[in-house]
Amino acid sequence: MRRYDDEALRKALIAPESVALVGVSGSAGKLTARPLEFLQRNGWQGRICPVNPTRDEIAGLKAWKRVSDIEGGVDHAYILLNAEPALEALEDCASAGVKVVSVLADGFAEAGEEGRKRQERLVRLAEEAGILLVGPNSTGVVSTASGFICTTNAAFKASDIGKGRLAVLSQSGSVIGTMLSRGQAQNTDFSVLISTGNEAAAGVGRMGQLLLDDPGTDGFILFLETIRDREALELFARGAHARGKPVVAYMVGRSEEGQALSVSHTGALTGAARSVSAFLRSVGIREVESFDSLIPVARTLSHSALKPGRPRAVTVVSTTGGGGAMVLDQIALRGVPIAGLSEASRASLSAQGIPLGHGKLVDVTLAGARYEPMKEVIRTLSADPATGLLLVVIGSSAQFNPELAVAPIVDAKAEVSSDAAPVLAFPLPHAPESLAMLEAGGIPAFRTVEACAETIAMMFDPLPAPVDAKDCELPAEAAALIATLAPGTQDEVTSGRVMQALGVFGPASTLLDPEADLPDDIGIAYPVVAKLVSPDLPHKTEAGAIRVGVPDRAALIEAIKAMKASAEAYRPGYRLQGILMQEMCHGLGEALIGISRDPVAGPMLTLAMGGVMTEIYRDSAVRPAPVDLATARSMIAEVKGFALFSGYRNRTKGDLDALVRTVAAVSRLAAAEQIGEAEINPILVRPEGKGVVMLDALLHVGKSHA
Amino acid sequence: MRRYDDEALRKALIAPESVALVGVSGSAGKLTARPLEFLQRNGWQGRICPVNPTRDEIAGLKAWKRVSDIEGGVDHAYILLNAEPALEALEDCASAGVKVVSVLADGFAEAGEEGRKRQERLVRLAEEAGILLVGPNSTGVVSTASGFICTTNAAFKASDIGKGRLAVLSQSGSVIGTMLSRGQAQNTDFSVLISTGNEAAAGVGRMGQLLLDDPGTDGFILFLETIRDREALELFARGAHARGKPVVAYMVGRSEEGQALSVSHTGALTGAARSVSAFLRSVGIREVESFDSLIPVARTLSHSALKPGRPRAVTVVSTTGGGGAMVLDQIALRGVPIAGLSEASRASLSAQGIPLGHGKLVDVTLAGARYEPMKEVIRTLSADPATGLLLVVIGSSAQFNPELAVAPIVDAKAEVSSDAAPVLAFPLPHAPESLAMLEAGGIPAFRTVEACAETIAMMFDPLPAPVDAKDCELPAEAAALIATLAPGTQDEVTSGRVMQALGVFGPASTLLDPEADLPDDIGIAYPVVAKLVSPDLPHKTEAGAIRVGVPDRAALIEAIKAMKASAEAYRPGYRLQGILMQEMCHGLGEALIGISRDPVAGPMLTLAMGGVMTEIYRDSAVRPAPVDLATARSMIAEVKGFALFSGYRNRTKGDLDALVRTVAAVSRLAAAEQIGEAEINPILVRPEGKGVVMLDALLHVGKSHA
Repeated sequence: MRRYDDEALRKALIAPESVALVGVSGSAGKLTARPLEFLQRNGWQGRICPVNPTRDEIAGLKAWKRVSDIEGGVDHAYILLNAEPALEALEDCASAGVKVVSVLADGFAEAGEEGRKRQERLVRLAEEAGILLVGPNSTGVVSTASGFICTTNAAFKASDIGKGRLAVLSQSGSVIGTMLSRGQAQNTDFSVLISTGNEAAAGVGRMGQLLLDDPGTDGFILFLETIRDREALELFARGAHARGKPVVAYMVGRSEEGQALSVSHTGALTGAARSVSAFLRSVGIREVESFDSLIPVARTLSHSALKPGRPRAVTVVSTTGGGGAMVLDQIALRGVPIAGLSEASRASLSAQGIPLGHGKLVDVTLAGARYEPMKEVIRTLSADPATGLLLVVIGSSAQFNPELAVAPIVDAKAEVSSDAAPVLAFPLPHAPESLAMLEAGGIPAFRTVEACAETIAMMFDPLPAPVDAKDCELPAEAAALIATLAPGTQDEVTSGRVMQALGVFGPASTLLDPEADLPDDIGIAYPVVAKLVSPDLPHKTEAGAIRVGVPDRAALIEAIKAMKASAEAYRPGYRLQGILMQEMCHGLGEALIGISRDPVAGPMLTLAMGGVMTEIYRDSAVRPAPVDLATARSMIAEVKGFALFSGYRNRTKGDLDALVRTVAAVSRLAAAEQIGEAEINPILVRPEGKGVVMLDALLHVGKSHA
Repeated sequence: MRRYDDEALRKALIAPESVALVGVSGSAGKLTARPLEFLQRNGWQGRICPVNPTRDEIAGLKAWKRVSDIEGGVDHAYILLNAEPALEALEDCASAGVKVVSVLADGFAEAGEEGRKRQERLVRLAEEAGILLVGPNSTGVVSTASGFICTTNAAFKASDIGKGRLAVLSQSGSVIGTMLSRGQAQNTDFSVLISTGNEAAAGVGRMGQLLLDDPGTDGFILFLETIRDREALELFARGAHARGKPVVAYMVGRSEEGQALSVSHTGALTGAARSVSAFLRSVGIREVESFDSLIPVARTLSHSALKPGRPRAVTVVSTTGGGGAMVLDQIALRGVPIAGLSEASRASLSAQGIPLGHGKLVDVTLAGARYEPMKEVIRTLSADPATGLLLVVIGSSAQFNPELAVAPIVDAKAEVSSDAAPVLAFPLPHAPESLAMLEAGGIPAFRTVEACAETIAMMFDPLPAPVDAKDCELPAEAAALIATLAPGTQDEVTSGRVMQALGVFGPASTLLDPEADLPDDIGIAYPVVAKLVSPDLPHKTEAGAIRVGVPDRAALIEAIKAMKASAEAYRPGYRLQGILMQEMCHGLGEALIGISRDPVAGPMLTLAMGGVMTEIYRDSAVRPAPVDLATARSMIAEVKGFALFSGYRNRTKGDLDALVRTVAAVSRLAAAEQIGEAEINPILVRPEGKGVVMLDALLHVGKSHA
């Protein structure tokens, strides 16, 4: 297998010196004529090599029969043929030493069994040749810096494709065009746009990795229908984070209908939406709620950040009470603290005769439509140590008098010191001129209240730190024990033993041989819980194989007899491995800890209170497993019901520290690939300092049921 | 007091023959010069009468010293003076017989005690003269039909104010400008825009009533910071509903910060956001989540409606898989059923060689960028009886080839019969030309995924029918009993008696004189619940004044002694009115029913499960009280926890029919003005057919605590 280094692949991907267009048409207007047309129109300076066995010349350029005929070779090829001929063309590219090949055709993984096999051949060919495969089902690759507009997407017909600093990686081929066009309408251009298609060999993660050090890219926008290369995506996202380049994603498939569609449309697996969202966030990817927030969020985050040392609160200045109140309301609704005006600023601005309103909105009314007062307000408030971020909501004057309403904001911003609070602006009316003036002046500006509020909320919502790997190692004792387990669901004694190896303990208990007589002293105090241990009785209550609160020896003997009869009736011939007796324990309430494996997002940890009510309210926290202590703590904070254990209405506080340790400990099971599923349900939460007690545990070795 | 009829007022409000501009400035660029400038620029044909004691002529027009000097009088005046002179001018208008007066000045209710008194004088003057007062703090009134642009809002400087069919009523003066400008950017004009300001005498409700029969208005947009004229708003909204004119509202103050601001900014009371939302919905007003949805929702609802007989499901057609899936996902997320393609349509379209995709998205791919196939798709699907509503998601071709991608939609729509499903469209790219073509062709079109999905969700969400008044009368017996109550919190015996008069019953019980000995037969079966009855012990548990599960007579004697001692220690000198003994009751779970009075939204009914968990999850339903049986049923369906009583996971079903009747019965208490607050907490829900049992009730006569 050949290998190219990433730098060579990056160059061939977005800045190739030559490109072969395989199957390009010479008939203007045809889909397969577009890449050539776009490359020529945008003045790309590289060498364009049309490949078409039936033509000697296309659009004034010499045409080749095969890629391998091209003297000097090419870096990049876009195959515009149908599925089967595309395979042959890829073979040809491989022999010609092409580094990057994009494939337009569909008819692969999304097209049933035959398509899946075809895709496997495609991948094998690419891998053997060390080719970076884009697609199949890709509308191509665009790099604006050099005018490399190598796509079939009709949107790139636009005559004024600007050079921007955000890269778009999209699993949907049409969305790169949507982004281009919607970006143009809001003064936002892009550095790179790639349609990753079926991602047979390389997905958004791999593409992102290649672009991490592109000096022309400050941030990334992802449009996702699924996740195909989880590890690569994580590496990419962490790398981007480390470089201060935000990654912002929109995910299709949050509804069941949307998920079903992703499966049928892309042939991809889909995971649970919550798990995927939890994964994205854990690796540092910002997921936006609305498609239209992608551009403003990515643009703002790649440009502005809160300053260390400044308070985590927004100051809102407005020239209009009602409009300003609306924006402030939307920001506060998203949990961002509102700062109001400091005494010092109020005194200083009032002395200059500037009205400031009452309440937390700094309502300068008509003074905001005059240059000098407005400049003074921006200067004062962005330098004020009480300001974390300054948002200016501009009224009607934004529409007709940007020189009065907007210029002072831009000018003030240019004058203040670099440790001033970031300034953002939202014009209430439709005001394209003001928006352009703000954006040219380096002030992030917004077109809708919601995009403004969502962006600010993201700026104030710190991403979680990466999970500390040393917190996540599976203890050797547990690993050794797990290695001995047979596939299938483990009984509670075995499951409990594994948990014990992780440092999670149940009540004092003793196991009785099923054939033995009950000893006089069972070693634990009455009353007890008694259960039959059997691989054939996963649902003990239904089988009558559990008794709670057995008060004394006589009752216990009676209970064991009755349980055996009941279990035999429930499942004749069931295997009885022992009788487990446990001390009765009481706590303030219960919790549930579960491990599962999401087909897309990987191993997941779920924490909930357990019980029917929290099921109805879907009150749980989900994170990729394993987790460290800080993550476990954040999960507990997220589960609303745990308020009961935090002193809600003067209740006794629960031992949440012990729960934190237990959650982290159990999460380490995810490191054991054999474990498909694990659950402690319930675990008893006792008062502060008294710890937690595992009441029931279940371990499944092998593929998860989920 | 003079009175004008509504028709005369409506005419003077939006189509006056003459207007006085009191305090108008002749200096171009000044705020108070704008109304005259806008009226002249827009060619208003009425008579403009500048009023200014220091000038003989303004902008080429004769000026008067006082309104009462104007020969022939005027219909409408806009007072542009400061607060105190505005009062004098209003007096002058009154003597001159002006019918409608708008007042620009602030300095009234929002400006402390002095301002409040000033506002009272203003209102008295207007009422005595029968004047319809707009404001104060109003940026004016605009009626586009006649070019009556009588406003100080700078946005109306726009040169191309079109005549539309939606009216805007806004409590924020700047928002009428924001709406004008944002409307223009999306091909939407308005019929009327009124800034209602402080609404000292007439609010959005009154203004809306006057506009109900305006033949130029098909729907209403409300921008609300509070509600000041609840009854008028209700009458207006019901009237609009009856006329098929939708009323769509955006409400500021959903966050606590936003609420606080409304108080300080407008001097208005604010109600609980949930109560206000419940009120709006109950009277038929659609509340949108996002400001930017106001225009598309109002425009679409005033134009398109689901057809009776067609299924309640959306069919989504797209030329692009990824983009189409995104839109479908967002619609499904909002709970709207997705229809997919009927067999008949699939067969018919497939026979014509049109690709249709897999799954529920009708993905016609590139066929959607050709005129004939696309027209055929729209024709077939909008006529298909399986289609409830047809949404077309248009890809890149919307941007450059509207004649291929959009024209067939418009043409097909024009050809289909009137009972075809409504057709809506969403172009994925920024495509102003396509949007204009769609909107001109009578096809509601959307600019964002969210506005599209929110509008469709509203079309599929029927408004509740008005509550049946005959279901809501307070029974005479209850009314008579309530009339005898002293102010303050009633004890549980009295409270229980009132509930009984409503048909709500507690367990079998008996009341013992506090001085009497316990009889041998207390008339109810042991075990019992025993409580001390006292006006001084509202919190019985804390006072130790309740015992549950008292097993027999001896224990009861003991319990009474202990409760007395405990209560005396808790509140020395407490008054003991009796000892209540009740049968112990068991049920499947509990509920809470409460009545309160919201300062803005009026009497409210709350239904919840009760208990700490549902408090943590804020799981409750709220409606204006009283409610009828259908509304009570919808409340039960809304409380998630009641799933426990609906057969969740095979649990025994609860007697929800009895709960419905009880909720409706208790809600009638709202009709008794004396009742400030009432609560049954808990009421026991028993199995189907076994009814519900009130365990504790509390009634408060007089002003609500809330």
